[in-house]
Amino acid sequence: MIRHTVAFTLRHPPGSAAEVAFLDDARVLAGLPMVRNFERLRQVSGKNAFRHGFSMEFATQADYDAYDAHPVHVAFVRDRWRPEVADFLELDYVAHAP
Amino acid sequence: MIRHTVAFTLRHPPGSAAEVAFLDDARVLAGLPMVRNFERLRQVSGKNAFRHGFSMEFATQADYDAYDAHPVHVAFVRDRWRPEVADFLELDYVAHAP
Repeated sequence: MIRHTVAFTLRHPPGSAAEVAFLDDARVLAGLPMVRNFERLRQVSGKNAFRHGFSMEFATQADYDAYDAHPVHVAFVRDRWRPEVADFLELDYVAHAP
Repeated sequence: MIRHTVAFTLRHPPGSAAEVAFLDDARVLAGLPMVRNFERLRQVSGKNAFRHGFSMEFATQADYDAYDAHPVHVAFVRDRWRPEVADFLELDYVAHAP
């Protein structure tokens, strides 16, 4: 299992309708067949400047690659992510034994 | 629920016995009574320089505060984290509605 996460900040003012619309519309990613456990998150630590996060899981690297190439994901990145996101950091995790 | 995560890199060489020992010994944190879903993670994205991650969840902010103040956590930070960790980023998340 690969957990793909991204912490980010939007160009929109906090609490704005545009912020709400972005977070709502991102749920389109949860509908992709290879995406598991999609979460929309508020980043609440004061030790960094990110305000939001997404987390999702893929069963295999092939599923991750298929997500990256999926037209719905490609369109979301082009039409929403690039114009609306001010800063972000991707972190991908694979679990060790407990 | 608050998910506390930290991405980090150790001073130890990758694959070294000291790296393995640090990751093994960190499991002491999983034994604290307020810590839920403790995970030891490998960071696998090439888009950042972090090599490891921990993730844990707290039911409440009071549980998070109790973890921060717990002698086992305080000792781990003092005796292992500060001397052995080269760089880190904490990200804490609270879930939006799905």
